[in-house]
Amino acid sequence: MEEHKNLKTDETDKRILELLVDDGRMSYADIGKKLNLSRVAVRSRVNQLIDNGIIEKFTAVVNSEKVGKEVSAFFEVDCEPRALVEVAENLASNPYVASCYQMTGPSTLHMHVLVSDFPELESFINKELYALEGITRVESHILLRRFKSRSGLKL
Amino acid sequence: MEEHKNLKTDETDKRILELLVDDGRMSYADIGKKLNLSRVAVRSRVNQLIDNGIIEKFTAVVNSEKVGKEVSAFFEVDCEPRALVEVAENLASNPYVASCYQMTGPSTLHMHVLVSDFPELESFINKELYALEGITRVESHILLRRFKSRSGLKL
Amino acid sequence: MEEHKNLKTDETDKRILELLVDDGRMSYADIGKKLNLSRVAVRSRVNQLIDNGIIEKFTAVVNSEKVGKEVSAFFEVDCEPRALVEVAENLASNPYVASCYQMTGPSTLHMHVLVSDFPELESFINKELYALEGITRVESHILLRRFKSRSGLKL
Amino acid sequence: MEEHKNLKTDETDKRILELLVDDGRMSYADIGKKLNLSRVAVRSRVNQLIDNGIIEKFTAVVNSEKVGKEVSAFFEVDCEPRALVEVAENLASNPYVASCYQMTGPSTLHMHVLVSDFPELESFINKELYALEGITRVESHILLRRFKSRSGLKL
Amino acid sequence: MEEHKNLKTDETDKRILELLVDDGRMSYADIGKKLNLSRVAVRSRVNQLIDNGIIEKFTAVVNSEKVGKEVSAFFEVDCEPRALVEVAENLASNPYVASCYQMTGPSTLHMHVLVSDFPELESFINKELYALEGITRVESHILLRRFKSRSGLKL
Amino acid sequence: MEEHKNLKTDETDKRILELLVDDGRMSYADIGKKLNLSRVAVRSRVNQLIDNGIIEKFTAVVNSEKVGKEVSAFFEVDCEPRALVEVAENLASNPYVASCYQMTGPSTLHMHVLVSDFPELESFINKELYALEGITRVESHILLRRFKSRSGLKL
Amino acid sequence: MEEHKNLKTDETDKRILELLVDDGRMSYADIGKKLNLSRVAVRSRVNQLIDNGIIEKFTAVVNSEKVGKEVSAFFEVDCEPRALVEVAENLASNPYVASCYQMTGPSTLHMHVLVSDFPELESFINKELYALEGITRVESHILLRRFKSRSGLKL
Amino acid sequence: MEEHKNLKTDETDKRILELLVDDGRMSYADIGKKLNLSRVAVRSRVNQLIDNGIIEKFTAVVNSEKVGKEVSAFFEVDCEPRALVEVAENLASNPYVASCYQMTGPSTLHMHVLVSDFPELESFINKELYALEGITRVESHILLRRFKSRSGLKL
Repeated sequence: MEEHKNLKTDETDKRILELLVDDGRMSYADIGKKLNLSRVAVRSRVNQLIDNGIIEKFTAVVNSEKVGKEVSAFFEVDCEPRALVEVAENLASNPYVASCYQMTGPSTLHMHVLVSDFPELESFINKELYALEGITRVESHILLRRFKSRSGLKL
Repeated sequence: MEEHKNLKTDETDKRILELLVDDGRMSYADIGKKLNLSRVAVRSRVNQLIDNGIIEKFTAVVNSEKVGKEVSAFFEVDCEPRALVEVAENLASNPYVASCYQMTGPSTLHMHVLVSDFPELESFINKELYALEGITRVESHILLRRFKSRSGLKL
Repeated sequence: MEEHKNLKTDETDKRILELLVDDGRMSYADIGKKLNLSRVAVRSRVNQLIDNGIIEKFTAVVNSEKVGKEVSAFFEVDCEPRALVEVAENLASNPYVASCYQMTGPSTLHMHVLVSDFPELESFINKELYALEGITRVESHILLRRFKSRSGLKL
Repeated sequence: MEEHKNLKTDETDKRILELLVDDGRMSYADIGKKLNLSRVAVRSRVNQLIDNGIIEKFTAVVNSEKVGKEVSAFFEVDCEPRALVEVAENLASNPYVASCYQMTGPSTLHMHVLVSDFPELESFINKELYALEGITRVESHILLRRFKSRSGLKL
Repeated sequence: MEEHKNLKTDETDKRILELLVDDGRMSYADIGKKLNLSRVAVRSRVNQLIDNGIIEKFTAVVNSEKVGKEVSAFFEVDCEPRALVEVAENLASNPYVASCYQMTGPSTLHMHVLVSDFPELESFINKELYALEGITRVESHILLRRFKSRSGLKL
Repeated sequence: MEEHKNLKTDETDKRILELLVDDGRMSYADIGKKLNLSRVAVRSRVNQLIDNGIIEKFTAVVNSEKVGKEVSAFFEVDCEPRALVEVAENLASNPYVASCYQMTGPSTLHMHVLVSDFPELESFINKELYALEGITRVESHILLRRFKSRSGLKL
Repeated sequence: MEEHKNLKTDETDKRILELLVDDGRMSYADIGKKLNLSRVAVRSRVNQLIDNGIIEKFTAVVNSEKVGKEVSAFFEVDCEPRALVEVAENLASNPYVASCYQMTGPSTLHMHVLVSDFPELESFINKELYALEGITRVESHILLRRFKSRSGLKL
Repeated sequence: MEEHKNLKTDETDKRILELLVDDGRMSYADIGKKLNLSRVAVRSRVNQLIDNGIIEKFTAVVNSEKVGKEVSAFFEVDCEPRALVEVAENLASNPYVASCYQMTGPSTLHMHVLVSDFPELESFINKELYALEGITRVESHILLRRFKSRSGLKL
């Protein structure tokens, strides 16, 4: 929800974005063929999209379970209001933490954590999370089933 | 948390994954140079990682605010227990819904929604979400601040 | 949070608005004197502010206790999601209801009610509110103390 | 809910109040014509209504979105009980705060806030609200839709 | 909170009430001696207090544990709003129910129940309370310790 | 729920208790006539019931509204667990407090308060209740309607 | 909390119970040696303890994780009040359910479930639990760490 | 949820476990007859099951009500996150505490307590539980009815 200038993206830019969200390694030549553009024109537009921050990065989406991160946990972290930003920055630097947001609603932080198994989760909770000053209450939930998980658009 | 066979990934695979999470368009030649592998060997390993589902896709991470999706909302959707799976599949097919999970804790669905503005949010809530049968209560929260948002590892 | 065009209001308009919020009956001549404008210029600007909806109305702020509305109650009204809009419109037409909003957070309506006394409140609750179809739970709170109550700016 | 003497208002006073709530700038002559009173009699009654505090002020109702206050937020502010009055007085002096009430129910303050946009809201929350001593927990909600918003009668 | 006329009670009436709340069987002669009144004057005033409903009844306060009512339970009974009054009247006629109130706050009934032991409590809950139509949720609490229990003044 | 010896009360004692709960001033002679007992035998049994604590006192039930206690409020008082007993004893000595109980469920005190009006309630809350050390949160509810209020049996 | 006669157990019975809770296979001869009793006297007392239901059974305590029940889950199952007993009996017959209790507090069932892994848990929840009629809401929690787990005394 | 090696148990081991869970004092000879094994082979397998921790102990299941533990209470103990492990270990050493677990969900400890009666429960709560440092809130519930209580498998 940061400030931003009104960036001009036309229909062609949108088509390029859709293709790259769908396949981040599609060659500029292939994109060009689909959109009746030259490879150079595509590259120029993509570079523009990167320069103004519309494309943040290209990435490979890795299945966390298959690389041993078998437990996905969501946390609601209640903080003393005055400590919230400091706690959030502290948690954001923790390698187990995949994301950390401040939301409307209660004065909690919403946090996603990926760990290998329950002993690692218990250790993360008791040794890393509960050890932070300014945390007053924590609520944790474990992922049971994923119905949709769109990648490519930043939450 | 679906079932999965123990997949063998060695240290070299892990290095390749790290490089591709960091830059999803890095050429196999460049990866090879960094890891002392031939381009062909890299391609073969990447294809293997794709075939066994470790790499789910390559994608461009698009800044949602900069393409006009300025409101990120999180929803807790309470369902009649017997309707939960049907509601979840219905929501998963809605284009505003970025992700939809079933968690331990209360019998709710956890859902991320991206909309352009508040009128679109209100319309989504009153016309699409509340119209579904089997929903008993909805709680919504708006993203205020993003402290960390790791891309590349599936939550 | 409805849509609206970007309306041009300059510094002089803002000064006029401040004066009229402070005293809704100030004469255009007096406003003109304070701002070095002619009475006709003030009238023209005020009419413009009314025409484009910036000034919604002029009103007298009446002390509700002193005209016998001694109990101010706030309600959280939980509805079956599919019935929410209909319930809201129904409540909005009730003369005891001073305001009725849909908020983020739980799928409730937030409602302000002014009644003369507790028997009238109990009657409103049991005979008018609880009688509506689609209401599943109601929570009521009574005003104890008013620390600030700004008038003139629409909530 | 402050103490007050039983003020005598007759039917004519009530008609005058209704007319002035509906149009705060109606001239005394026009009111007189509608009620078969002289302009002087109307002025005398209005002055009486002002003197005994029944009419608190005349004001212009300004559409907050159209002057750039596009986000209306409601807050529940939990305080250490001993700090509640001090926190309330502190918040009442904050220019973003439109109203601030103590209610029955939980020992929270109910507060309405008007800001220009989400960055301003986030800044208000993290820098002004959370910085106050004696606040233990905050819950915020954003206005989605206004079904009724009566002006003229003080909540 | 029912309507009532302003009843005139003077200081002497108040002293009589205090004496009778303290000892409901004190003779009118003894009351008269303490207040310098004749026995007839006391009787006349007491009859007046009874006639206008200030004294509702004289009673013996019986220790519920010592007559075998060893479990005091408090219930919060959530009802479908439309069924609340009917459920309340139904519960009020149940001999285990000592009191039953509608309060502000959530749309529940607050109820006090006296039973002999836990099997009787379980039977009351499962066979009498849960069997009523229109009840959606029940919460029960058991008395652990009585710090104050004023008798004589109707709650 | 204090300890107690098994007290022997026979059927005649129970009939006497019923008559005295119903009319606390019924003469021993009248009781005797109804139960075929001598006046002396009734007195002896009543004294026995008083001596072993079955009859705690005789009292007049006074209508609180009619003596100006027009607002009945119920409070849930959350305490720091270590301070609970001290807070409870403190509140029990407050003249506005009619009853104060510790229950199973949350670590709160359940308290009934009788005040004359809302300004007195607000003053009790802000000056007497919130001023106590060891209180972390308070929830208050106002009596709307009394469906049953049995007197004579100690809750 | 079922009814029961006052059973006479003397100090020797208590010592025998302690020894058998500690080692359920201790021979009567060994117990006799420790307590200066004959083997026959011990057997006679143990049979007596079994006959009057003080000893419910002898059992082996099996480590659930080590036989593949790696996920221990606790559930709070909210039911329509009228369906609670039927739902409870239904759940009690489910082989995944280790225990099922009705408690004071909210009208939920408290249930312990042992499953092999998360897919089995998800399947139990979505196919067996949510499929039951009369269930309105479910809350689940996963065991993270066992600080004490006394066996031998029935909860 | 502690770590553990994959222990090999075959079908015969499982049959032995079932028999011993059902009757913890069944002789090895009787087990052997049922499974076509020698007494020595059964002993050898049972010793193996004990050595690798699959059988934790043999015990007698004692009916807690019949030995005077008539009140079963469940507690949710909220702790300051940093104090949770220390509080848990402290509670685990208390003889009234039958079990004490850390769960996902809120940062509470889940605890089972067995006491003789309500005065003992009140004393445990006010003198032992509330006296511990680091406890912020406690919620207690009393067992009303036991629908299933499987013994033999460790929760």
